[in-house]
Amino acid sequence: MDKQFKPRGEQNISNLPGLRIIPLGGIGDVTKNMYLYELGNDIVIVDCGLGFPDEAMLGIDLVIPDVSYLENKKDKIRGIVITHAHDDHIGGLPYLWQNLGEPPIYAQKLATGFIKVKFTEANLPKGKINMVGLDTELQLGAFKISFYQVSHSVPDSTGVVLETNAGRVVHQADFKIDWTPVSGQLTDVGRVAYFGDCGVDLMLIDALRSERSGYNISEKVIQPTFEKIEKEAEGKVLITTTSSNIGRIQQAINVAILSGRKVAMIGRSMENNFQVARDLGYLDVPPGLIVIPEEIKRIPDNKLMLIIAGAFGQPGSALSRAANNDHRFVTIKPKDSVVFSADPIPSTESAQHALIDKLSKIGANVYYTALTDALHVSGHAAAEELKLMVNLVRPKYLLPIGATFRQMRAFADIVCEMGWKREEVLLVDDGQVVVLNNGKVQTDGRVEVRNVYIDGLGIGDVGNVVLRDRQVMSEEGIVLVIVPVDSRTSQIVGEPDIVSRGFVFEKASEELLDQAKRGVKAALADHPDAILDWRFTRHHIEEVLQEFFYKETKRRPLILPVIVEV
Amino acid sequence: MDKQFKPRGEQNISNLPGLRIIPLGGIGDVTKNMYLYELGNDIVIVDCGLGFPDEAMLGIDLVIPDVSYLENKKDKIRGIVITHAHDDHIGGLPYLWQNLGEPPIYAQKLATGFIKVKFTEANLPKGKINMVGLDTELQLGAFKISFYQVSHSVPDSTGVVLETNAGRVVHQADFKIDWTPVSGQLTDVGRVAYFGDCGVDLMLIDALRSERSGYNISEKVIQPTFEKIEKEAEGKVLITTTSSNIGRIQQAINVAILSGRKVAMIGRSMENNFQVARDLGYLDVPPGLIVIPEEIKRIPDNKLMLIIAGAFGQPGSALSRAANNDHRFVTIKPKDSVVFSADPIPSTESAQHALIDKLSKIGANVYYTALTDALHVSGHAAAEELKLMVNLVRPKYLLPIGATFRQMRAFADIVCEMGWKREEVLLVDDGQVVVLNNGKVQTDGRVEVRNVYIDGLGIGDVGNVVLRDRQVMSEEGIVLVIVPVDSRTSQIVGEPDIVSRGFVFEKASEELLDQAKRGVKAALADHPDAILDWRFTRHHIEEVLQEFFYKETKRRPLILPVIVEV
Repeated sequence: MDKQFKPRGEQNISNLPGLRIIPLGGIGDVTKNMYLYELGNDIVIVDCGLGFPDEAMLGIDLVIPDVSYLENKKDKIRGIVITHAHDDHIGGLPYLWQNLGEPPIYAQKLATGFIKVKFTEANLPKGKINMVGLDTELQLGAFKISFYQVSHSVPDSTGVVLETNAGRVVHQADFKIDWTPVSGQLTDVGRVAYFGDCGVDLMLIDALRSERSGYNISEKVIQPTFEKIEKEAEGKVLITTTSSNIGRIQQAINVAILSGRKVAMIGRSMENNFQVARDLGYLDVPPGLIVIPEEIKRIPDNKLMLIIAGAFGQPGSALSRAANNDHRFVTIKPKDSVVFSADPIPSTESAQHALIDKLSKIGANVYYTALTDALHVSGHAAAEELKLMVNLVRPKYLLPIGATFRQMRAFADIVCEMGWKREEVLLVDDGQVVVLNNGKVQTDGRVEVRNVYIDGLGIGDVGNVVLRDRQVMSEEGIVLVIVPVDSRTSQIVGEPDIVSRGFVFEKASEELLDQAKRGVKAALADHPDAILDWRFTRHHIEEVLQEFFYKETKRRPLILPVIVEV
Repeated sequence: MDKQFKPRGEQNISNLPGLRIIPLGGIGDVTKNMYLYELGNDIVIVDCGLGFPDEAMLGIDLVIPDVSYLENKKDKIRGIVITHAHDDHIGGLPYLWQNLGEPPIYAQKLATGFIKVKFTEANLPKGKINMVGLDTELQLGAFKISFYQVSHSVPDSTGVVLETNAGRVVHQADFKIDWTPVSGQLTDVGRVAYFGDCGVDLMLIDALRSERSGYNISEKVIQPTFEKIEKEAEGKVLITTTSSNIGRIQQAINVAILSGRKVAMIGRSMENNFQVARDLGYLDVPPGLIVIPEEIKRIPDNKLMLIIAGAFGQPGSALSRAANNDHRFVTIKPKDSVVFSADPIPSTESAQHALIDKLSKIGANVYYTALTDALHVSGHAAAEELKLMVNLVRPKYLLPIGATFRQMRAFADIVCEMGWKREEVLLVDDGQVVVLNNGKVQTDGRVEVRNVYIDGLGIGDVGNVVLRDRQVMSEEGIVLVIVPVDSRTSQIVGEPDIVSRGFVFEKASEELLDQAKRGVKAALADHPDAILDWRFTRHHIEEVLQEFFYKETKRRPLILPVIVEV
C-alpha cells in the first residue's frame, strides 16, 4: 500500500510565504479531484476523488491522486473537506485515507453516507467521518472553513470558503444554477454574495462546461419526458442514469408511482446509493413500491420499471449484462423501453453506442439524447451561469478547475470579456503551486504528480514501463526467442525456438517464423564468443529480429529473447 | 494476398430465384461499403470501401470487406460501380481488385482521379478505370445502370439505378439536400422523381444521420465563419478538415484570396487530393496562391494559411505532428489560429479532444464545434431530407445502409410515420441475402462475412485469435514460464524461469515472481511422469499460475509456458 509514497522532491519551489494551493488532481483530466491548501504548519485538503483510465492506460481499473508530496507532512493535515458526494470527489478516500495519517473528514450529510459505505466495504473505521451542515464553521488550524449550498446533479453539494490570515479563497467545485431543481436545493446566491462582499482573493471554479453558451435548462424538464415514454411503453421500462443522480432517480420513481409500476433498483452501485439516499431522507418512496431483483419475474412487464446501472455502457454493468443475456434477473425483450438519461463522456462514447445498438437489435425501444430531447441535463454551469457565480463572488483572481485545458481556456475567455485581465486568470496543471499572499496570487514552481494506477489489487505497482509494454503488445504482439546455450562451451544447444502471441497466426506463418529462427541462429554464429554476454546477445537478437520482422510485415512486435543456460 | 479467399460456404440459402442483393460491408459499422447485386450469371458490385478499426481491433490499421463469397464467381463480375469518391466507398479497391479478377471499374470524374492515384501507389494497371458521366447508361450483363447527381461532402456524388428483369433498385449511398452547395452540384430531384415515376421496387439509402431531426444547414454558412476567424487572427491560420472535402478546401482558399494570404497544403492525403481535384477542375485557385511546404518559413505568419490533414487528431497526421513539434515544416506558435472544420466520429473523439488540448496549451486560438457555430456541416441527410428523397422515389421496399443498427431503426421509424409498413423496411446485417423477385422483397439466409484486417503488410493474416491475445496482453500483460527439461530423465534441469511483460514491474515484484517459480516447481514435482507430455504440463502450469496470480493480484495475465528440452 505504501508504494505511492516513494519520496520525491519538490521542484523549483522558492517557498514564497503565504497560502500555498496545490492541485494534486482535477485539472486537465477532469476527475480525481484533490486540492491541497497549506499555510505554515497547517494543511487542509479539499476533496479526494477517483479518476478513470483513458485509452492509453491499458488494463487500468482506476486512477488515484499522487500524494507523495504529503509523505512527510501527514502531521500537518488538519482535515479533508468534501464538497459533494460524487466519486471523483470522494472515491479516493478508501485508498488514500490511511496513508494520509487518517485525518478527520468533514462532509455534508449525503456524502457522509456514501463515504461510510465505502469505508465499510474497505474495512476502515468510520469514527473520523464528520457530518457538517451548511451553517457549520470549522476551524482547522489556520483555516476557518464555511460552506454554502449549490445546485448540482447530486444533493448536498456545496461551495467551500477558506479564510486565513493570508487571504480568503472560495473553492467552488461542481455546481450549476437551477431555479427548479428536483432536490429543491438552490444555489444560495444570497450567501455567495455575502462572501463576495467580504472580499475574496481567489476563486477556484468548475469550468467543465464553459464551452457551452447560455444556461442549462432545468432538471424539471426530464420527468415529463419519462412520463411520455412510459405512456407509450408496452413492456417494462428501464431507466439508466449515473447511480449518484438521486434527483433523476426520484423523477423515475415519481413516474412509476403515477403509472402504477413497481420499481426495482438493479446494479450494486444503484442499490447502494438508493439505500443510503433513502435512509437519509433524500428520496420520497412510498412503502410497497420497491421490489427486490429476485421478485421482478413475478411482475407483469407493463407494471414494472427498472432503474438500472450502466448508463455509459460499461462492460460489466447491469445493463450491459442484461443486453448480453447474462444477468441473473433481468432480460431485455423486444417490447421493452430503455431510457438513457445520461450523456456519455468522450472516453465512453463508443461503449454507450455499442450498447444502444445491441438493445436496438433485440428490438427494444431505446431512447437517448441523439434521438430524444430532454432526457438529460448537465450538472455543470454553462457560460451564463458561470458569469452569475463569478459576479457574485467578484474574486481578485480566478483559477478554473475540474476541466480540460481547452475548457479552462474557454473559461478564461468568458471572464476576460467580463473585465478580468488575462494575468488574473490562472491556467495551471496538476502539481502547479499557487501562492496567495498580501492580496497577490502567483505561481511558484511545481510538485511532481504522477498518475497512481489501480490494477486489480495493486495500487501504484503498474507504472509507465508496464503500460508501455502493454501498449506495444496490444498493437503488435510479442515474439519470444528461446536460446538454449551450453554454459561450458558457450554454444547453442539445439535450435533456438520462437513463440509469438498477438503477432501473427502461427499456423499460417510457419515459414516466416522459420526464417526468423534461421536468422537468430546465423546472428549468434557471427559472435560465438559473445553469447554468454547476455546483455549483448539479447540486444543483438532484438535488433536482428526487429529489422527482419519490420521488413517482412511492417510490424514491430515486442521481442523478448530468453537465454536458457543449461 | 489470397488468404481472405479461404473457401467458406453460404449458409441457409434456399436460392430463391430473382435479384440477390448482399451487403458485404457498410451496415452496422458504417464504413467499408460494398454491395453485391447478383442475377443469374451476372454480378455487379456497388462500391468497394475501406473500414477503420474500432477500439477492439488492437493494432489493426484498416479493415476491408470479406469477398470470400465471390471466390468462385469472379467470372460473373461485370463491373464495380462507384457512387462517390470517399475512401469508405473506393479505398478497398487497391486491396481487392486483383482478387476480384480485375473487373472494370465505373466511376464519375473525381472518383476516377482518386482511384488512379491509389492504383499508381499500389503499382496496379489503370486501364480498367472507366470514367462515366451523369448521363451514361451502362449495360453490365443483365443490369442496366443509370446515375443521378446528389449533393454530398465530396463532388461528383451520385445515386445509382439498377434495372433488371427482376425489378428496379435505387442505390442511394451518402447524400444530402443542399440548395446552395459550394460545388454547385444540387441533388437532381427532377431526375430522381423521373426514376420514382418509373416504379422502384427497392431503395437502399444512407441512414447515417436519420437520428437528426429537421434539415442540415447549407455548406454556405461556413465561409463567413472562416472569414471572421481570419480577421481576428494575429498569426497564421491553420484549417483542418477531411482531405476529400473539396468544397471546404475551396472555401478556405476563397478566404485566403480575400485576405491576401498564401496557402500551403500540408499532409500527404491533403496534397494528393488537392492536386487531383485541381487538375480535374474542381478547385478554383489563382496562380501564385499556393506555396509548397518548404517555402512557408519565408512567409510572414499573418500572410499564411495552412490547409492541413489530421482533423480527427490521428496520431501520425500532419496536424498532430505539428502540435508535438515534430513536423518538418510546420510549427504551431502561441498566436496561431487552428480551425477544426470536421466533427469527430465516436471512435476519434478522444484523439481530437487531446489534440485541441495540446494546441490550446501551446497558446493557439483553437476553433471547434463545441465552442464555435457553423464550422462544419454534415454530408448526410437529416430526417426531413430523407423524407424528401423517399417521397421522390416512393419505392415499395426500403433498406437503410451505411449506418449503425440504431440509426437504421431511427430511419425505419421515420418512414413508418410516412406510411410504409414495418415489413417494408428491411433492417439487415452485413452478409444478409435479400432477394427481389416479382415485386416482392424478402431475406434469404446469409453469406458469412468477417472483418478482414490489414496490419502492416499483412492482409487477413491477423484473425480473432491474434486479436484476442492482444486484448489480454493489453490489459493484463504476459507471463512466460521457461521450463528446461532433460529429455532423457524427464526431470527439470535447474530452475524454471519466469519473465513477464506488461504484468508487474519486475524489479518491484521479485518476491511475487519467486513465489510463482516455486509454485511451478512444486506443481511439476507433483507429476514427475507427465512432464514430457507437453500438452498436459503446459496446461497444468497455466492453471497453477493463473490461480496464483489472480489470488495475489486480481489480474489474469496471458500465461505462456515454454518447455525447453535439452
